[in-house]
Amino acid sequence: MLQISERGIQMPASPIRKLAPLSDRAKANGVKVYHLNIGQPDLPSPQVALDAIRSIDRKTLEYSPSDGFRFFRENLVNYYSKFDIHLAPDEIIVTAGGSEAVLYAFMACLNPGDEIIVPEPAYANYMAFAVSAGAVIKTIPTSIETGFKLPEIEKFEALINPKTKGILICNPNNPTGYVYTADEMEQIRLLVKRHNLYLFSDEVYREFIYSDAPYISACHLKEIEEHVVLIDSVSKRYSECGIRIGCLITKNRKLHDTVMKFCQARLSPPLVGQIAANASLQENGSYMQRNFDEYRCRRDFLIDRLNKIPGVYSPQPEGAFYTLASLPVDDADAFCAWCLSDFRYKNQTIFMAPASGFYVTPGLGKNEVRIAYVLNREDLNNALIVLEKALEAYNER
Amino acid sequence: MLQISERGIQMPASPIRKLAPLSDRAKANGVKVYHLNIGQPDLPSPQVALDAIRSIDRKTLEYSPSDGFRFFRENLVNYYSKFDIHLAPDEIIVTAGGSEAVLYAFMACLNPGDEIIVPEPAYANYMAFAVSAGAVIKTIPTSIETGFKLPEIEKFEALINPKTKGILICNPNNPTGYVYTADEMEQIRLLVKRHNLYLFSDEVYREFIYSDAPYISACHLKEIEEHVVLIDSVSKRYSECGIRIGCLITKNRKLHDTVMKFCQARLSPPLVGQIAANASLQENGSYMQRNFDEYRCRRDFLIDRLNKIPGVYSPQPEGAFYTLASLPVDDADAFCAWCLSDFRYKNQTIFMAPASGFYVTPGLGKNEVRIAYVLNREDLNNALIVLEKALEAYNER
Repeated sequence: MLQISERGIQMPASPIRKLAPLSDRAKANGVKVYHLNIGQPDLPSPQVALDAIRSIDRKTLEYSPSDGFRFFRENLVNYYSKFDIHLAPDEIIVTAGGSEAVLYAFMACLNPGDEIIVPEPAYANYMAFAVSAGAVIKTIPTSIETGFKLPEIEKFEALINPKTKGILICNPNNPTGYVYTADEMEQIRLLVKRHNLYLFSDEVYREFIYSDAPYISACHLKEIEEHVVLIDSVSKRYSECGIRIGCLITKNRKLHDTVMKFCQARLSPPLVGQIAANASLQENGSYMQRNFDEYRCRRDFLIDRLNKIPGVYSPQPEGAFYTLASLPVDDADAFCAWCLSDFRYKNQTIFMAPASGFYVTPGLGKNEVRIAYVLNREDLNNALIVLEKALEAYNER
Repeated sequence: MLQISERGIQMPASPIRKLAPLSDRAKANGVKVYHLNIGQPDLPSPQVALDAIRSIDRKTLEYSPSDGFRFFRENLVNYYSKFDIHLAPDEIIVTAGGSEAVLYAFMACLNPGDEIIVPEPAYANYMAFAVSAGAVIKTIPTSIETGFKLPEIEKFEALINPKTKGILICNPNNPTGYVYTADEMEQIRLLVKRHNLYLFSDEVYREFIYSDAPYISACHLKEIEEHVVLIDSVSKRYSECGIRIGCLITKNRKLHDTVMKFCQARLSPPLVGQIAANASLQENGSYMQRNFDEYRCRRDFLIDRLNKIPGVYSPQPEGAFYTLASLPVDDADAFCAWCLSDFRYKNQTIFMAPASGFYVTPGLGKNEVRIAYVLNREDLNNALIVLEKALEAYNER
């Protein structure tokens, strides 16, 4: 028998996509499926981006530089300066989405067996990228009861050992919507400095913070400039998930030059995507404001409605476009699958992501689901009606 | 000090791109630099592809499925059938260029320490992807004197041990332009079968075979269907390097499902690239014929001229758009760098890729360069004049 690699066996299946076959089957049977499972924004991409693609004037769709077009990186410098993040173009490496940035960050920083600490629940694919690099994720549980705030710093200290090489945060957080406070960020800063760790910070949702709390980027933290690896992507902020454009930002030259070797091996990030993303940076603000207002409005509606369904609880997420809600079921995996395979209300059903896939510690989040509010309000309303009916029917079986 | 990972340190710098700073400096000083170093076709992309991009009618640039759009994979099935390669859409996984296909193939098949056998010289980035997966490349030297034909099978047998998990070939070959014969492919087939190995076969240059010899794909080989991992890309055949669309093909379900976990982690291949690549598949043949004729004409011109320069030798490459030539210099690395930094002829110079980076065995190919014939004939002619003058001047220093 030809063997599959150990890492291939260990690779987790996507908790967001694993129920897709059930959804496909429902759709094939003419059932309307509301997708609450995936962070695929329904809002349109910026018109300037679509126009830039439509007016592409190249004859040959050639490679771009391995770190991305310089004009694009220069425009990114301007973009970040608005958030008080001050960079040079050579501190930015354009990647195929934030995904590639996480993978190369891990590949360049972590040896097999090295550990990184990640608050859980966490974006499931971090685990996949850690497995790809042979690294080990150690999690700090956060809990729905406390609104997913960061545990005391002692919990981190207790996990740190000579194999610990970094901390990874996602801020605003996917899947919880939590936004780290200035105090929490200061705690992380001290930890990183004291133990000489990398700080991998995924901040792709920075544009979507609904509270008055300030956005504290890892790049704002003093005296750990060389430790920070910022992960970013235009996917969510411009509804451009398909163009696969993100970036890895580091002021650490040695790390930059190492990541560049991985980038040179894969030759270049997508050409047309860079053209679209670059055009999006010219957005005058009304586009972002419209999307922001829409998401905030949906969030207010969703959370209010969720908490009115008997037995359902969701804290108020302050950022991103997800919430993690607890349901009155024993096993959310089974419930989500049942919704797709068995439950229909007026020939409709819902597709939610079971939260178990976002936790590493077995047994955590068993009655929780991640809900992405990437549906228009009418569909969101219909989906919530279906959820309420589904819970009633499930518990009366 | 924050540490860089061992694999990050081991990652080779690109032999094709490492002299780029010297080239940039020459250009900044107003020198015309002829690029013979990189496989970036100068020929235009198909008009249907450009038209498809310009008429994109989506409002939201959304994710595609992790294995690529089904309509695109169905059209690829048709494309391959013309080469007597018979596939189902679910045996094709769309990737971000051939690069990602190689990386995921290695990640899914090879454990750290596992070995694969690769005839050298070889495409330099295979080494980089092997390092990424922690795998070890063992090379079988081929030589310019024999036109880079495959050594006797005993040379392979001698390298095989319990850690050997696969053989990798590139056919037609980059960097040599060599096309494997039916006999050679049969030898590889027997070897793969006898020792239960994977056969990774990179066939991105299949459209460019200039001899009458048949194209023998790894997918044509009987009884090893489950062993073959075909690596492909539209980059070279349609001059679409920038759209980052390739694919990984396997009839091995277990391997397919494992590779899919890596693909799900990175979410989706580029959307606009798939639209362009899909449109390119509708080419009626005149586009491919025109490019084929142009490359063949350039090859004939280049090889003839190279062999007329005193001390230069190039075998006749039968495929792809590269040749590996030996020069009358001790150290082609130094010569290539000197051309960029010191030599000017009528304010022009040349950028060639030193062949040493395509060999793993130290000392091999020291007086060889890879020349890509991706310049129009006038520029190619000028570049050859510059090469001849440069060799004269270099050896008279």
